Amino acid sequence: MGKTITEKIFAAHLRDQLSEDSMVLDLDVVLCHEITTPIAIMDLIDKGKDQVFNPDRIKAVIDHVSPPKDSNTALQAKILRDWARRHRIKDFFDIGANGVCHAIFPEKGFIRPGNTVIMGDSHTCTHGAFGAFAAGVGTTDLEVGIYKGVCSFRRPQSIKINLTGTLTPGVVAKDVILAVIGRLSVNGATDRIIEFTGPVVEAMSMSSRMTLCNMAIEAGATCGICQPDRITAQFLWPFIADQYGGLDDAVAEFSRWHSDSDAVYESVIDIDVSDLEPQVTFGFRPDQVKTAAAFHETVVDQVYIGSCTNGRIEDLRDAAAILKGRHIAEKLRGIVVPATTDIYRQALDEGLLAIFLDSGFCVMNPSCGACLGMSAGVLAEGEVCASTTNRNFNGRMGKGGMVHLMSPLTAAATAVAGSIVDPRPYLSSEVTR
Amino acid sequence: MGKTITEKIFAAHLRDQLSEDSMVLDLDVVLCHEITTPIAIMDLIDKGKDQVFNPDRIKAVIDHVSPPKDSNTALQAKILRDWARRHRIKDFFDIGANGVCHAIFPEKGFIRPGNTVIMGDSHTCTHGAFGAFAAGVGTTDLEVGIYKGVCSFRRPQSIKINLTGTLTPGVVAKDVILAVIGRLSVNGATDRIIEFTGPVVEAMSMSSRMTLCNMAIEAGATCGICQPDRITAQFLWPFIADQYGGLDDAVAEFSRWHSDSDAVYESVIDIDVSDLEPQVTFGFRPDQVKTAAAFHETVVDQVYIGSCTNGRIEDLRDAAAILKGRHIAEKLRGIVVPATTDIYRQALDEGLLAIFLDSGFCVMNPSCGACLGMSAGVLAEGEVCASTTNRNFNGRMGKGGMVHLMSPLTAAATAVAGSIVDPRPYLSSEVTR
Repeated sequence: MGKTITEKIFAAHLRDQLSEDSMVLDLDVVLCHEITTPIAIMDLIDKGKDQVFNPDRIKAVIDHVSPPKDSNTALQAKILRDWARRHRIKDFFDIGANGVCHAIFPEKGFIRPGNTVIMGDSHTCTHGAFGAFAAGVGTTDLEVGIYKGVCSFRRPQSIKINLTGTLTPGVVAKDVILAVIGRLSVNGATDRIIEFTGPVVEAMSMSSRMTLCNMAIEAGATCGICQPDRITAQFLWPFIADQYGGLDDAVAEFSRWHSDSDAVYESVIDIDVSDLEPQVTFGFRPDQVKTAAAFHETVVDQVYIGSCTNGRIEDLRDAAAILKGRHIAEKLRGIVVPATTDIYRQALDEGLLAIFLDSGFCVMNPSCGACLGMSAGVLAEGEVCASTTNRNFNGRMGKGGMVHLMSPLTAAATAVAGSIVDPRPYLSSEVTR
Repeated sequence: MGKTITEKIFAAHLRDQLSEDSMVLDLDVVLCHEITTPIAIMDLIDKGKDQVFNPDRIKAVIDHVSPPKDSNTALQAKILRDWARRHRIKDFFDIGANGVCHAIFPEKGFIRPGNTVIMGDSHTCTHGAFGAFAAGVGTTDLEVGIYKGVCSFRRPQSIKINLTGTLTPGVVAKDVILAVIGRLSVNGATDRIIEFTGPVVEAMSMSSRMTLCNMAIEAGATCGICQPDRITAQFLWPFIADQYGGLDDAVAEFSRWHSDSDAVYESVIDIDVSDLEPQVTFGFRPDQVKTAAAFHETVVDQVYIGSCTNGRIEDLRDAAAILKGRHIAEKLRGIVVPATTDIYRQALDEGLLAIFLDSGFCVMNPSCGACLGMSAGVLAEGEVCASTTNRNFNGRMGKGGMVHLMSPLTAAATAVAGSIVDPRPYLSSEVTR
């Protein structure tokens, strides 16, 4: 019987089988940030077990509230920083050289096909874009992972989402994943792996694949995953060139992490994206989606472009292409948060920051910011935000606020219009993907 | 008997004399931000007096926590924003087009020689650099100012600080004002006006004069003030050109706001700055100053460049000249916060932001930020910050943190060295002022 990519990763990392349904895996990478890891660190210290299984396999970043907004977040940053130094964790990214965890860790080449990855963060599923099994875990699992380099998981069951057809200009990965979640519902993939396949995924950039996998958790999935291919190898090439004779060799080796043609899925869902229109959420659940065009006169107070979902350079280019030569609507605030320091610098070099500034946007330093209502653009009661982030839960971006999730293109067009609109009439020839 | 500039401003604005020592003045400008003004707004609403004396003479900005870091600061911003819209206050500066109040209001040309200005903010004295009487007031006075356009003050008594000699390269206005405060002590000018005069002031840019006046409050003064001259007229020219036949006419008219040669001062202090060295505070009071060179191995965790004291383009140029081609020390965080959106944009255009990024600094959007520990770089217990801000009070930048005040030059050199140093060995030919 054939295996899915996830079953292959599990088999290759199996340390112990606790029961038919429970498997302990060796971990390749444990990712850390300053909100959830300090709790694990302090508990390990309390237990007299202030150790790490392998400092080279632990990566840490200060990203959620960067720089700290108060004494509490300053303390959390300090606990993580001191711990990283104490254990010689060389891949520690501090303020000034940091970024949103799910953007900076892939950017640095830390995630490889076939890897097992955990983090105390629900959007860890993002890293599945590289053909890795990456799961968000609670503090106890994180603590064990840091100390022993293992984690237990349920036997993986996968849902295959087969994406066919061709995306039309102005429709992007964010629209696809919103449509997928709308179809699956917020618990339609609970405890499952969502495997994204088909020609639409194969044509996507790593950035777009990360957007897809990032929101797998919003349908309840443990992980989203894409099969690694030439695009994956090209992205990773600066980090792996010395390990392969050429790109073809890397692509060939990555194919080890492909699902077999006779692999068994819990379900297979075919979606033709050719007629897909820009999608926007309308309620407090990410499966409450409708087309941007279906919104009428939904006035927006704030537009937020950033986060691990859509704060990468491709996202900023999309938004800037619409904003260039235009100004945001009166009475509307625009906030753009490049996801990492490198992306920020690249956006500066490409002239994107200047476009955002000229259009009236506030350009912020990299952080998770307002996505989860911790800083950098929290909403007041009754305010409405058009956002490229991943969650529209009641109060997430501030108590009493309403968040509409959408693509960077839709967010930029909405910023110009002042209310939620279909971005396609705003497209120039510069935006074709 | 001759009059000081401040006595002339009082005489020209006298609405009522309550007693020998208490005078009610008409106000030219009432400045507002989102931390102190909402309290006054809510109280006026409660009293059924939700009115403003003149919307064109009220200027408002969201600057302290921009964008909001939590629901409370989001609410404060919303109260100010809604009030500004309700009363058609056209000079309201929201997120994306804002800046630190004491930087953006002068930048927009709102402060003129001879003006009376109040704000619910202790560093309102900054605006005295334009030959205005500008004072920080409490909520009750702010409320009366908003509603009636008047404020009562004590009869002004002035201390004249006469600055002579020539500043040597690497010694700047911040060093001068720190030395002045060190000499006066933190209550040496309580309830007094500090009038800065002499050839050193006459040679200073408006930015440097604002740095001087900004910290007058740190010696207890109600206001710092400089006599308006050609440099003042040149700064204001874009805003006043249509009112004068030429710059000379403006300069001549401004001389109306000069102190008479026989004006009476409480005291006159002559300071020759020729031998002045870069100054740094060492305790929890801004009058605890010594030379930068007198510090030995004082390791710094964070360097903060920004604020109403030293976040203007000249300050960023100074710091960048030292940082160019250099990287900040390992284990040190650098944070730079251009004081306004226009300064941010100019720093981008001049390549300064790129220099800060390359040196390892985190470049933030304009806000008051960490200066008063409200956001954007709050210190953890035991951390040390080298800062271009204005107050080193115990806990101001975070409970248990230590702040050393210094110039942007000294802060930049300290960032490179990792501990507090005299910046002069780091100077290139680009820094000569």
